[in-house]
Amino acid sequence: MPHVFWADEQGLPATDRGLAYGDGLFETIRMQGRQGLLLSRHLARLTRDAARLGIPVSRRDLQSVCARAVERWPRSDDEGWVLKLTLTRGAGGRGYRADPGMTPNLLVSAAPLPPMPDPAGVVADFSRVPLTVNPLLAGIKSLNRLEQVMAAQDIQGSLFEVLMSNARGELVEGTRTNVLLKTSLGWVTPPASTLAVAGVLREWLLERLRARGEPVLEQPITMADVTGPECQGLFLLNSVLGVVPVRTLADHDLPVDTGLATIFNPLELLE
Amino acid sequence: MPHVFWADEQGLPATDRGLAYGDGLFETIRMQGRQGLLLSRHLARLTRDAARLGIPVSRRDLQSVCARAVERWPRSDDEGWVLKLTLTRGAGGRGYRADPGMTPNLLVSAAPLPPMPDPAGVVADFSRVPLTVNPLLAGIKSLNRLEQVMAAQDIQGSLFEVLMSNARGELVEGTRTNVLLKTSLGWVTPPASTLAVAGVLREWLLERLRARGEPVLEQPITMADVTGPECQGLFLLNSVLGVVPVRTLADHDLPVDTGLATIFNPLELLE
Repeated sequence: MPHVFWADEQGLPATDRGLAYGDGLFETIRMQGRQGLLLSRHLARLTRDAARLGIPVSRRDLQSVCARAVERWPRSDDEGWVLKLTLTRGAGGRGYRADPGMTPNLLVSAAPLPPMPDPAGVVADFSRVPLTVNPLLAGIKSLNRLEQVMAAQDIQGSLFEVLMSNARGELVEGTRTNVLLKTSLGWVTPPASTLAVAGVLREWLLERLRARGEPVLEQPITMADVTGPECQGLFLLNSVLGVVPVRTLADHDLPVDTGLATIFNPLELLE
Repeated sequence: MPHVFWADEQGLPATDRGLAYGDGLFETIRMQGRQGLLLSRHLARLTRDAARLGIPVSRRDLQSVCARAVERWPRSDDEGWVLKLTLTRGAGGRGYRADPGMTPNLLVSAAPLPPMPDPAGVVADFSRVPLTVNPLLAGIKSLNRLEQVMAAQDIQGSLFEVLMSNARGELVEGTRTNVLLKTSLGWVTPPASTLAVAGVLREWLLERLRARGEPVLEQPITMADVTGPECQGLFLLNSVLGVVPVRTLADHDLPVDTGLATIFNPLELLE
């Protein structure tokens, strides 16, 4: 069981490796009262990706901490909030090398739900910050998010998101969203192996679309794909903010299809 | 002036962005009594790279904190220790977006000097972890060091370091060291623009070699360059550990030239 720290009481120790090296990972879970949206997927991802980093934690331990969190921060059944779990390898070690058998630290915090995006569509742009993804760490929502922080500095005014590209010029993801493109051939999204963060809403939505028999292609997307005539709609996916259609991308008006948003009903996904 | 936190008293707040996103950077400075090795270069790098990230801090503020640190942790003139400065963008913000005008946090800590490597040479290997460097963040000793942590897991037993390569197969650096190769054409080291961390000892040593009229080439190095007949010596550079010759690399015996170590005299570099 990790050492549990409640953020309204204390932070992590000064020698924590999460601060020192970003040696850990996190989840932000949209809550409604005592229930969490896609909660089991969040905990499954955290457990799986912690194992990829060699940080031992069990689903059972995480479930028990979530149960304590909803007792600690009681909300009415219709009140939305955000539960954040930050899991680090622990405190200490010799430089980058961790000590074997370290006990992980788990920081638990609550925050208000952010403002929800306009369901009629948002404005996005291309980021000037290139995205680099280490194949060994692809998809992991680790604490190494400085590229996203630098890119997010350009999100000002009415801009909702900026989209980051890799060194091959492929559009990979937003700072806090995965991307999904509607085309005449089907739904297109970059493969999980190329992503900085493989979102749980992306995972759920791809499964749901495939279950409905719709074609889903996991393949690279270029800037031309989203601004050209093949684009029938571009969607940004974030498990707290939902399925967000883009109506303007870098001064291009995009077709807005709000149909997809209707298959994402947050109330249905509460656990 | 940043908010200063002394690590023997308290850690950073739970909402600090250094923990949340690795939104900050650090320096580890080899101290002897009240003096620091290459101290002004460490503070210059921290100030310069903080500015690249948009984190405001002045040399003067950092100097004043170092002066307070040596008062707080008094040591005899011949006692070695390590002073660590961790500077973050501050606490809070809206997700990845920082609030304008945030006050940075500076965590200051003291640690014992680690064991020094064998001056006759160390054993190194190639890392299985690929190194990715975002061109916008190249060289910055940021808190995003998960790749180095993963690579350092393989440093066991008599192994001193593992050397990481980029996607082009070029040897870039060790987990905590820069590399310098001696060849018949001169000294060769990868260009700063390709490095994850551009070390202060590397910077000092290249200047010193050039001042002595020796040819210094900043260009990519391949695995074949270091294991082939052109290699007249391979050195690992770290401002705490010094200039470290490699005598064995992935089972290849390398020529060991201890001459370079003699131009690095830690006592000369105390400030």
